[in-house]
Amino acid sequence: MGFFITFEGIEGCGKSTQLSLLKTRLEKGGRAVLGVREPGGTLLGEQVRSVLLNTTEEGIDPWAELFLYEACRAQLVAKVIRPALIEGKVVLCDRFYDSTLAYQGFGRGLDREKIAGLNTLATGGLVPDLTILVDCAEDVGLKRAWSRINAASGAKEDRFEKEDAAFHSRVREGFLEIARGASRVRVVDGSREISTVHREICDIIKGVAGL
Amino acid sequence: MGFFITFEGIEGCGKSTQLSLLKTRLEKGGRAVLGVREPGGTLLGEQVRSVLLNTTEEGIDPWAELFLYEACRAQLVAKVIRPALIEGKVVLCDRFYDSTLAYQGFGRGLDREKIAGLNTLATGGLVPDLTILVDCAEDVGLKRAWSRINAASGAKEDRFEKEDAAFHSRVREGFLEIARGASRVRVVDGSREISTVHREICDIIKGVAGL
Repeated sequence: MGFFITFEGIEGCGKSTQLSLLKTRLEKGGRAVLGVREPGGTLLGEQVRSVLLNTTEEGIDPWAELFLYEACRAQLVAKVIRPALIEGKVVLCDRFYDSTLAYQGFGRGLDREKIAGLNTLATGGLVPDLTILVDCAEDVGLKRAWSRINAASGAKEDRFEKEDAAFHSRVREGFLEIARGASRVRVVDGSREISTVHREICDIIKGVAGL
Repeated sequence: MGFFITFEGIEGCGKSTQLSLLKTRLEKGGRAVLGVREPGGTLLGEQVRSVLLNTTEEGIDPWAELFLYEACRAQLVAKVIRPALIEGKVVLCDRFYDSTLAYQGFGRGLDREKIAGLNTLATGGLVPDLTILVDCAEDVGLKRAWSRINAASGAKEDRFEKEDAAFHSRVREGFLEIARGASRVRVVDGSREISTVHREICDIIKGVAGL
């Protein structure tokens, strides 16, 4: 079996950048690495991702939103992550079920036990070997996320980024609470320089997985 | 509150035709009627419906499929069905959660208790006042469904219709088992003439709801 690492955190925390840097480093070290993102990473997931981004007109029911994320997750685990792990690859996943608990549970207030039950169904019980929580204050993250949006033309309708600071504050606290309850989760301070954060993540990976 | 009627049955059983006939009759009688279909009936649902029809390339994980149906259902109940019932409308729904239990549970073999749990989450506990199960043998239904496909050009890729007879036989038996366990479900023999089935459904509706 390979090694399964997930990256979590609020918008603009830098997790996608860190995932990409780690992927390059591991590949340079000769490892077979697969990088995927949630929701997405499969034909089904990419289509559902666009559904999630395009339902602002009627508004999305919170349970409908949750089920869409779980659908993407089930497809991604079954069709991509499990096969890659069986091939011995290191799988790096940009968001996984901790995001569902943090956003839909802590953020939107849906029942967290029910969410955890759905997460288990969607993953078939697959648990990350290691989770890197790239933590930063919500104002830092949102500022980064907004400048990214403003740099890219036409992306202003991305509903992932439109929530307010109070929501993201609850999400951040949710991630930190998840980290306190699960030894697989390592918290790194994402407010620092990209290269500093990268070095810390490399140290963690080396310590935990010898990679 | 209005009155919530669902139509269930295997492909080609005639439920959509019967729903349409009943809708016309109730409207002629002066009732406000809303007809919806699952999956669909909302912007989100129609988009997900097309995802369900277009993932043949990679194949769909059965749990992913189930979650997509539940997402459509949650959105449809929250955005369309509940508001219409509150307005006092008669809501006629082409497929509802019995289809999930019959297709994903009895047909594909997913855990039926877990499916029932998801159904409850998606509906927020909403139960149909009446369910019309239009029953027919799977060979009769599939023959009808295929002739419909062949009549419509380019629709041959509809994966709803591509399953084999053994699968539909399990689904049919599933529907009948659901009917045996729920007094809200009335079984009508869909192998007869359309007008005969329609008259029987009208009699049931009159008896149960006085409509």
